[in-house]
Amino acid sequence: MRYELHYWPSIPGRGEFVRLALEEAGVPYVDVARTRGGQERMLALLEDGALARPPFAPPFLKAGKLVIGQTANILLFLGERHGLAPKSEAGRFFTHQLQLTIADLVAEAHDTHHPIAGSLYYEDQRAEAKRRAADFVATRLPKYFRYFERVLAGNAAGAAHLVGARLTYADLSLFQVVAGLRYAFPKAMARQAKGHPLVLALHDRVAARPRIAAYLASDRQLPFNEQGIFRHYAELDR
Amino acid sequence: MRYELHYWPSIPGRGEFVRLALEEAGVPYVDVARTRGGQERMLALLEDGALARPPFAPPFLKAGKLVIGQTANILLFLGERHGLAPKSEAGRFFTHQLQLTIADLVAEAHDTHHPIAGSLYYEDQRAEAKRRAADFVATRLPKYFRYFERVLAGNAAGAAHLVGARLTYADLSLFQVVAGLRYAFPKAMARQAKGHPLVLALHDRVAARPRIAAYLASDRQLPFNEQGIFRHYAELDR
Repeated sequence: MRYELHYWPSIPGRGEFVRLALEEAGVPYVDVARTRGGQERMLALLEDGALARPPFAPPFLKAGKLVIGQTANILLFLGERHGLAPKSEAGRFFTHQLQLTIADLVAEAHDTHHPIAGSLYYEDQRAEAKRRAADFVATRLPKYFRYFERVLAGNAAGAAHLVGARLTYADLSLFQVVAGLRYAFPKAMARQAKGHPLVLALHDRVAARPRIAAYLASDRQLPFNEQGIFRHYAELDR
Repeated sequence: MRYELHYWPSIPGRGEFVRLALEEAGVPYVDVARTRGGQERMLALLEDGALARPPFAPPFLKAGKLVIGQTANILLFLGERHGLAPKSEAGRFFTHQLQLTIADLVAEAHDTHHPIAGSLYYEDQRAEAKRRAADFVATRLPKYFRYFERVLAGNAAGAAHLVGARLTYADLSLFQVVAGLRYAFPKAMARQAKGHPLVLALHDRVAARPRIAAYLASDRQLPFNEQGIFRHYAELDR
């Protein structure tokens, strides 16, 4: 069976968290919307009245007959199946807790450029975006980074991973968040670098894993841009 | 073992989703921050440097030695333990997918009154709140309600539940979202009522379950107010 990942074809977005897990697991998958006619198939599935258990929005993963929506839920599924999560109950739930905290951070990063409505252009909410981004950079970003640094420092198995002694999907996702935030807020992230060496070391360690490094060097990975979640607008990065 | 729920003592908030699951499961728990000195204990736990796997924010649940954060994660845990989720793989992941979609809706409902920063008062972001709430009511709320109505209509086991033939934690959470949105946006919700009979019937069915009805009539349940997630500001409900 080949997994089918369904996500917007022009941005890394939330789909990237799933791609990283699929790539690290080394399992075959199709990035459906990037194939010919694939985006139309994705949109048709979203509106398919015959689908009893539909996803609300991309990304979603088809695994045989299963259709699984919500990024963190897809990672929960892939983590169980492909050894990207601990086997212990405590480890499983803590990994998922971290993933959901990362999801909150991602949503907040998105809302820095879309504080009013996803249906409006950035240009229609620039003034509000400046206010929201200023708070994000001053209070929220440091709070999240302090938290993840603390989790790494507190890991009884060592600071190389967020949970236990092996890589989990939460490590992959934190890598992506660091990369995205560096793209969007290079100045703010330069300030974060000093206080959070463990988070940044985790980023570099994930990037150097053979399968991830091969993926990052391939054209399967989409670059960040100003249509995605992590956007660089210099006026929001003070 | 008695569960310990840690959450802010003055609002239903995200803690309410956990309370509903604990009440329906009929398991003993302490609402820690509502006991004498409890809020201080909760805040101390959040900052406890000796806690290797800390939560990022309330709510969190202590289950013996386990400390579990993130509302949807707590429900995943309680659902497995207390029969509030299906046993099948497909059912488990779909229930969690719905819960995460509800979590997104809850975050968007919160941001209608706090579109700029949680650290600011509502009064400091009223103009932005009006813009965000207008979009929420016009586009987001109907989109979520259409989705949940479709899921109920598509349930092969009948429209009485979101997943399968038995109550899950997602049903309890959808009940709470309907109640909260009715409090916050009575006019907008009156308009939603016509097109979404299954969602509203689910709300009423959950409210009538013996344990939930007893809980709603008790002083264990906190009323909605203007410090919580679901707030009623008439100017936001057009």
